[in-house]
This record gives sequence, structure tokens and C-alpha cells, in this order.
Amino acid sequence: MTDTIISSASREVVLGFDRPFVIIGERINPTGRKLLAEEMKAGNFDRVAADALAQVAAGAHVLDVNAGIPLADEPALLVEAIRLVQSLTDVPLSIDSSVPEALEAGLEACEGKALLNSVTGEEDRLEHILPLVKKHGAAVVAICNDDDGISTDINVRFEVAKKIVNRAADHGIPACDVVVDPLVMPVGAMPDASVQVLALIRRLRSELKVNTTCGASNVSFGLPNRHGLNPTFIAMAIGAGMTSAITNPLEASLMQAVRGADVLMNHDPQCANWISTFREPGPQGGRPGGRRGGRRRRAEKT
Amino acid sequence: MTDTIISSASREVVLGFDRPFVIIGERINPTGRKLLAEEMKAGNFDRVAADALAQVAAGAHVLDVNAGIPLADEPALLVEAIRLVQSLTDVPLSIDSSVPEALEAGLEACEGKALLNSVTGEEDRLEHILPLVKKHGAAVVAICNDDDGISTDINVRFEVAKKIVNRAADHGIPACDVVVDPLVMPVGAMPDASVQVLALIRRLRSELKVNTTCGASNVSFGLPNRHGLNPTFIAMAIGAGMTSAITNPLEASLMQAVRGADVLMNHDPQCANWISTFREPGPQGGRPGGRRGGRRRRAEKT
Repeated sequence: MTDTIISSASREVVLGFDRPFVIIGERINPTGRKLLAEEMKAGNFDRVAADALAQVAAGAHVLDVNAGIPLADEPALLVEAIRLVQSLTDVPLSIDSSVPEALEAGLEACEGKALLNSVTGEEDRLEHILPLVKKHGAAVVAICNDDDGISTDINVRFEVAKKIVNRAADHGIPACDVVVDPLVMPVGAMPDASVQVLALIRRLRSELKVNTTCGASNVSFGLPNRHGLNPTFIAMAIGAGMTSAITNPLEASLMQAVRGADVLMNHDPQCANWISTFREPGPQGGRPGGRRGGRRRRAEKT
Repeated sequence: MTDTIISSASREVVLGFDRPFVIIGERINPTGRKLLAEEMKAGNFDRVAADALAQVAAGAHVLDVNAGIPLADEPALLVEAIRLVQSLTDVPLSIDSSVPEALEAGLEACEGKALLNSVTGEEDRLEHILPLVKKHGAAVVAICNDDDGISTDINVRFEVAKKIVNRAADHGIPACDVVVDPLVMPVGAMPDASVQVLALIRRLRSELKVNTTCGASNVSFGLPNRHGLNPTFIAMAIGAGMTSAITNPLEASLMQAVRGADVLMNHDPQCANWISTFREPGPQGGRPGGRRGGRRRRAEKT
């Protein structure tokens, strides 16, 4: 059993094999969001605030914060976004950048224990990022590519993950603080992408014994009805042992699949979360509608 | 690789590890459908006909036919239902009864190679049903309970499956013609029901190397929003290796999950089935809407 603990000033979230699935809200990210990028660059963080609140309301357990805007002062913008989000919500943060200086500034601004997003198996990334993770006592997302790029061979990706876990240990970072992203590729372009990544998730769990995360919606890139495909992938990935995802909690069908998967993995005691989310209003208003649902279902059966 | 071939007079359906998932439509069953039972008993099969056509239109690959009505002549009703369904559709049939005489009459009326539903590990069932399966060259659903009832221990259920497969072999029925139903129990009453049955599905596939089926919707019995939970279970079950289900193809969310699972298991070459089912109409009407979807998605990203 591997528990990855991350925290804000006042709240802890735990990723683990015997824990409810953790949703890391991906929305606060100007990549591909032109208007958000322009606003952040101009010092307007209203949309960041709205995105933070909406994602937490929708069920995000952690918020990813990214301020990667070309030609902007990314460390300063990231710090401002982090401070704002921390003032509005108490969920732990995932600090997301490809720029080490931004990651460092973000870690300094962040209260509690952050999830640093991310390190790869590339040598210069390992040498820059792991000391930051250690210094700030953070956890880190480890992405399964290295100086040779992203391998289509999952054995190579497994070895990259193993290398990162070992290198982290050299820096005094325990394996429980390394959350591996196996890299979900689009199934429309690589027909065996999903089969392979599910096999990799199972190995990461059974052999490397690490928690896992991924950009789940990438699997449906380029296909129609992506919102219809993503929930099925996330259900399969959770069944294979994945313990978190960086994704959009505003996708209701995705959140329904995650809540359902918690029930089906026996991570929702007494189905309490499922029942409180979905119970039908009873005939007297507030009463749980178990009986009524039953009547309707029988009536359907003509 | 294990292929279970069933057929009508003119069409073959194959259950297999490397095949698209097979949906066995469950609707033609008077159990719990009072009106259908009364109609069938009175010789009115209009609803049977409508159910057959609707299920095939919704994507059922096989139709289960059951005529179990108390105090009725079940063999005669089953034969009539089978003849009618065969006259309307060309999908293979699953002949469903707990009465050996009805199963035998059904097998005689059925063209092609039927799936007989079902045998259990109970001694008298084994001795009555397996000779029928052999005589008619049918395939058979093997349910994992025996004279001791349904065990909550999946090791016991695995052993029951193994016993049925071995006993079938004694009768000259190959393992590829035994489709094991691991028995899906309601997760609301048994919190580890889903975790256990997923583990059993994996063992049935890797150790016993048989195809599997189940009454998938049973998992959500007693919970609210069953239509929201069933697709997540079926996705997980397919990820674990299940190759068919006896379920309701008129549940659109379930069929979407099955079609998505085919894509994600690499059982939908070029995603052709997914794309033809879900592509958006293009600006000129018939054109696949890939570009348009892209524009809309970008526009969302403000």
C-alpha cells in the first residue's frame, strides 16, 4: 500500500490504492486558452478565480495551476495565481510548469505540501527538479519520457518510471512521493494506446508500487464524442489501478464515472457519496427516493 | 485465444478475447414484466416482436429469449417466441429457461447454433443440460453456483466454473463452447462484489481461458442512478477481460460504454464503428464534422 499525501494549509488529500480516486482539476492552464492567457498576462485573474471555485464545486480534490504564457513573466504570474487560489479554496495544489524557475517560485508561494508537475526522465530535468522537490518536501509527477522522447514500447516507459523513482531515492525522496504519469496517447492515432497504457498502469502498481496519474482526456483526441469516450477510459484505468487523473471535473459524465468507479472499487463506504450525489427526491420532497425509483422501474417493465 | 461461435441460419457471432464485445439483449423475458407475461400467455407476441426489433436496432448482437411464465406451457411459448424472433431478425439466439423441457424444445426450434442459458454446477442441472448441449451442438452459459448455492468466495466460484468446464469436456463439449457467468452481485449489498467479480473475470480469462458473460446491471441493484453506474461497471469488466453481457441494449449510456470499450481495447479497427455512430454532421450536412468539432472545442476554451 502506497499513500501519497499532499496538502494545503488546512486540508490533506491522499492518493492511494485503497483510497477514493483523486481528481486534479486541469482548467487553470492558459495553454490553448487564448482569452485566459491574455487576461492573466494583463493581470486580470477573475477567470482563474472562477475556474478554481467551479472545479472545487464540481468535485476536484486538487487544483493544477499553470501560468505558461509565451513572453510573460511566468514565475510572477504563477505565484499570483497560486496565492489567489489558496485564498479562495482549501484544496491542495499541483504546481504545473515546464520552467524550473516558475516551479521554484510556485513552491515558495504554496502553503502545505504541493504536487510538483512535473519531472521527466530527461537528465537535465532530473537534476533541476528533484532537488526542488526535496528542498520543499513536495510530491512530484514523474512523466515516462526521457532524452530519447516518448517510447511507444511500454517496457521502455516502465524503465523510465523506474529510473525516476530510483533517482528520486538518491535525492532522499521516497517512492510514495513520486506519482507516475504513464503518458496516455490518442487511441485514434495509436490503436493500441489504451491497451498498452492500461497494461503499464497495472505494472506500475504491482511492480513499482507507485501511485499514478494521467491526462485522461488525451485518449480521445481527434475522435468525435470525446465526452462519451473519456468516462469509459477512466473507468478502465481505475479498474487497472490508476489512482488519480489530471482532468476536467466540469465534465459531468467523467465525474459520474469516477464516482461510480469509487463505488465499484469499494472505495465509497456504504455507497454514501454515490447515494448523496444521485438520490432522487422522494414524494415528500427531501426523502431519498429508493422506493419511488423502484416503482418507476417496475412501471417501465411492461 | 478462445472463440465461441454461435449462429442463426445466416449469421455468425463470435465471442473472443480479440473480438468486439458481444451484447446479448435481455428484454424478451416475462420475469418481472407483468404485461408481457399476460400477453404471451394469451398468445399475443406483438411485444416480443417489437422488443426483438428494437434491441437489434440498438445494437444487440444476440437475443436472449425467455418464456418463463408461472402456470403456462413454457416449452410451447418459448418455441413460438423463438420462431417469431427468427422470422424477424437474423441474429443468433440465447435460449433461456430454468426448465430442461423448455430448453430442449427451444433447441429443436432454433436454427443455427444457439447459446443455451444456462447450466450451473448443480449435479442434476449438469446431468440434464450438458447432454442437450452436446446433442444440439450448442454453446452454453455456465453459472458459477452449485448445490451449495452462490459462494461469496470467488475461489469457490472459480472452482465451480472449472468443474462445469471439466464436466462439459466429459460430455464432449469443448471449453470454447462454455461461456462462464461469474455472477455479478449487487454492490449496494456486498461492498466488495465488484472488486471480487473483476478479479474472477481476470482469472477465468487467464487461467481457465474461457469466454465470459454476466447480467451486468445486477451490480447496481438497489442504488439510485443505476443507468449512471452500469456503464462504468461494464467498462471495468471489459477491461478485466469480459467478452459479453446479457443486458439491455436500449440503455444508450451502456451501449456508448461498450462501443467506447471496443475502441479502447483496440477491437474497433480505425475506430470505424465509433466514428460512424458518433460523428457530428458537418456544415454541408453529411460531411464528418472533425473540423467543426475542433472549432467549437477551441471556442469553449475561453
